[in-house]
Amino acid sequence: MLAAVIHGARDVRAQERPDPRLLTPHDAVVRVVAACVCGSDLWPYRGVTPTAAPHPIGHELVGVVEELGDQVTSARVGDFVIVPFSLSCGRCQACRAGFPAVCDLVTFFGSTDRDGHPVDGAQGERVRIPLAQHSLFPVGLSEAEVERRGLVPHLLTLADVMSTGLHAATAAQVGPGDVVAVVGDGAVGLCGVLAAKLLGADRVIAMSRHADRAAIARRFGADDVVPERGDDAPAAIRALLDGGLVDAALECVGTQQSMAQALAVVRGGGRVGFVGVPNGGPELPVRTLFSRNLTVGGGMASARRYMEDLLPDVLSGEITPGDVFDLEAPLSDIAHAYAAMDAREATKVLVRP
Amino acid sequence: MLAAVIHGARDVRAQERPDPRLLTPHDAVVRVVAACVCGSDLWPYRGVTPTAAPHPIGHELVGVVEELGDQVTSARVGDFVIVPFSLSCGRCQACRAGFPAVCDLVTFFGSTDRDGHPVDGAQGERVRIPLAQHSLFPVGLSEAEVERRGLVPHLLTLADVMSTGLHAATAAQVGPGDVVAVVGDGAVGLCGVLAAKLLGADRVIAMSRHADRAAIARRFGADDVVPERGDDAPAAIRALLDGGLVDAALECVGTQQSMAQALAVVRGGGRVGFVGVPNGGPELPVRTLFSRNLTVGGGMASARRYMEDLLPDVLSGEITPGDVFDLEAPLSDIAHAYAAMDAREATKVLVRP
Repeated sequence: MLAAVIHGARDVRAQERPDPRLLTPHDAVVRVVAACVCGSDLWPYRGVTPTAAPHPIGHELVGVVEELGDQVTSARVGDFVIVPFSLSCGRCQACRAGFPAVCDLVTFFGSTDRDGHPVDGAQGERVRIPLAQHSLFPVGLSEAEVERRGLVPHLLTLADVMSTGLHAATAAQVGPGDVVAVVGDGAVGLCGVLAAKLLGADRVIAMSRHADRAAIARRFGADDVVPERGDDAPAAIRALLDGGLVDAALECVGTQQSMAQALAVVRGGGRVGFVGVPNGGPELPVRTLFSRNLTVGGGMASARRYMEDLLPDVLSGEITPGDVFDLEAPLSDIAHAYAAMDAREATKVLVRP
Repeated sequence: MLAAVIHGARDVRAQERPDPRLLTPHDAVVRVVAACVCGSDLWPYRGVTPTAAPHPIGHELVGVVEELGDQVTSARVGDFVIVPFSLSCGRCQACRAGFPAVCDLVTFFGSTDRDGHPVDGAQGERVRIPLAQHSLFPVGLSEAEVERRGLVPHLLTLADVMSTGLHAATAAQVGPGDVVAVVGDGAVGLCGVLAAKLLGADRVIAMSRHADRAAIARRFGADDVVPERGDDAPAAIRALLDGGLVDAALECVGTQQSMAQALAVVRGGGRVGFVGVPNGGPELPVRTLFSRNLTVGGGMASARRYMEDLLPDVLSGEITPGDVFDLEAPLSDIAHAYAAMDAREATKVLVRP
């Protein structure tokens, strides 16, 4: 089968790999209907995190179940499923508490499972899914129906970016009446805007300096767009809010600067939800948190949990998070998909095998 | 009048100071019925934070209003009041959001107010209260009735330690069904046990190695007492919880070790509420927060807000937070009060002018 393999900085190739097969009774094999390129895939692509040896890549997919191990009863062959970007057991304390992202057995695409077997990347024609009992999420519609209703992009976002946006808003305890700022206008930030509105935020301020992305933010419900960064950011927010700051901020980038900006735009007693993978940088300033009475929470989204909440909103058409995709590419042209995101020519690229 | 003045390390004296008087129309003068010594008073007492020049000390008091400025309508002369440890305006964004502890005009005892006038310490016979309109909290009972019902110690804790315990539990988002660990067995930690129970925690684990304090923790509702610290603490918690960790932890000390312990005993996706004044130490480990999906929040308690919630529970006798006092001393013997707390001969000392 064809699958994306990263060989090093700016070197992702679509190449032949062995067809996946069941390795344990807990596995499934899923035929990929659509995958995509994530902002976090750009870290190894840009060489910020080194690639020691070539490996398959990609961690977001929707597809159709082709094979099921004997112990997997949560889906049937032929089911159209979403697979979250992290695979989980569903039984450990974290899973039971609603945090499968930090499952005791958490397993990632393009990596190695708990039995020592390599795990495929999601950017491929087929993938073996370990921990399939809890990790497969059937949407209750046939592939034909999903395609006919144009739901593929929207459902695909539940595998990661839309669930991650909702995690940022949930970690920031966004609720009715809140004024919320979203730091970062990538696909996750845009989904954060949508999520904040979904949780009842009164006013959402997208912090963006890209016209195309600001336009999507507006479509997702952003009331204001603020381009200022750094020290200028709190002043711009104060100018907008009669001298006040926001109740909650969503940090959707993962740099030192974006976290500092998120902390600076929230009022005393405010909350920051962070989902940007912390890219090194210094630690959280505990005395600032103390003296300003701030709460900071977040991490990897428990997509497996959030997709349950979000599916009805996607199926009803209340939210259309797939609007973050502004380019579609065939798997055979995966190199172009990465290059377009790297150059910011695309916000997010959908990949069809 | 007599008042406590700190002159340097292990040198607190009861000495004569000028009687306070109204300096602005927003002031009140309160006759102190009871004050107390706080764990945080021990930082300057022990010389951990240096005392540059002698100044009055103490920030917790209940008393009777003696004089009121023209602009103060929230209380009447003769009212028995609690005064929170931080004084606030009640009108800025933080105050309106329920966080008067980070009021734009926040003013502290033993310091200087926003008009540049010195502010008395609470360990004295009388105090001038700036920002009195919002900072006085009448309890609705006469002094005689409060004394007759033995409510002085309990009401006094609402000025700081009980409100601070409730802030720790609130910041840790404690709710029904939660298993909660409390790090620190000083008066605040003990009040944290009480607060966690009040918010519906299913099981509260007091992390204490002092038998007398553990006994109060048990009286306040602690289900378990765990003496282990450091690397042994998570293992001890796991032994108690069938391999699991707690949903939320209250950090009530303020050292690097206590924060590390709090972070180590919560499960993935758990919450830490911290109210210990961060005593230097390194910053919060952002990658640990991210990788374990933790939320950390806290800071100084908005006592002015929490006392409203807690007063009915004190008046009904549902909670008796004044049980944290295990020594009473006259103001004239303030040096002994500090020495007893410094030597851990007392958990908390009530001071009567």
